[in-house]
Amino acid sequence: MKVLGIDPSSRATGFGIIEYDGQKYAPVCYGIITPSRQLPFHQKMNEIKVELDKIIETYTPDEVAIENPFYAQNIRTALALGQVRGAILVAIAAHGCALYEYSALEIKKAVTGYGQADKEQVKMMVSTLLEIDDPRLPTDASDALATAICHLNTRSFQKRLEGT
Amino acid sequence: MKVLGIDPSSRATGFGIIEYDGQKYAPVCYGIITPSRQLPFHQKMNEIKVELDKIIETYTPDEVAIENPFYAQNIRTALALGQVRGAILVAIAAHGCALYEYSALEIKKAVTGYGQADKEQVKMMVSTLLEIDDPRLPTDASDALATAICHLNTRSFQKRLEGT
Repeated sequence: MKVLGIDPSSRATGFGIIEYDGQKYAPVCYGIITPSRQLPFHQKMNEIKVELDKIIETYTPDEVAIENPFYAQNIRTALALGQVRGAILVAIAAHGCALYEYSALEIKKAVTGYGQADKEQVKMMVSTLLEIDDPRLPTDASDALATAICHLNTRSFQKRLEGT
Repeated sequence: MKVLGIDPSSRATGFGIIEYDGQKYAPVCYGIITPSRQLPFHQKMNEIKVELDKIIETYTPDEVAIENPFYAQNIRTALALGQVRGAILVAIAAHGCALYEYSALEIKKAVTGYGQADKEQVKMMVSTLLEIDDPRLPTDASDALATAICHLNTRSFQKRLEGT
């Protein structure tokens, strides 16, 4: 099965797809969506949605995982992040993908074992777990891959529980 | 020219189109988009976007006006409102519509002359200005019509200024 992880941000929305064959995780693709700076804000939102459409159509993920922002620094950043999430949610729903949400703490804990890990620690663990040897792996993309790993871990754990 | 006004909300997004022939404002259509309650949140966002797509395709507005939320009660409401705005912005950008944003204060002032007017006062003035005799006019729809009126007023005022 293929899981698409997404890390929403208006400047650089990270994405990463991981394939799981029942035994091992393998990265399928990853990157960042960076809308053209000169575009008006609403066109930036549409650009994120359109790029995500293409990724979903190309790689047909089975499930999608995204960070649930229980926390934002202030009202202004919450509004900005909310708008990016809105554009992303439209793309996910339009393709009929099942969506799963995890807190930043759950995601960090899933890949590093530590809920307060920083972005560099997450990146190092994601690279190790997925055997990615890419010094230019963007942190937004590794955050997205971490979200997909978190979902796959939770999923396998739930499956094991159901199997007992 | 036709202006579409939008009042975003996850429960009931108001919309209203006004036609201006250079002398008089006339309402073309108005209503609210209420996503099905039982849907998951991301599908609700897509439903708002899809309904807005239909409205834009049916009535082909020349310009779109929306409230710019400088203010939200708290982070939670800012995130929720942001997500609805994201879905709406995608629909507007996908149809290549020009977007204009106004503060709640500007909108209320444009229709009632008073920036602190309540929703009922806005509704009464919108009904009078547009000669709408509809006791069941939803307040979210009258807020959307008020946003369109605010844009048309600002537009005519700017045009007069340019003409002097």
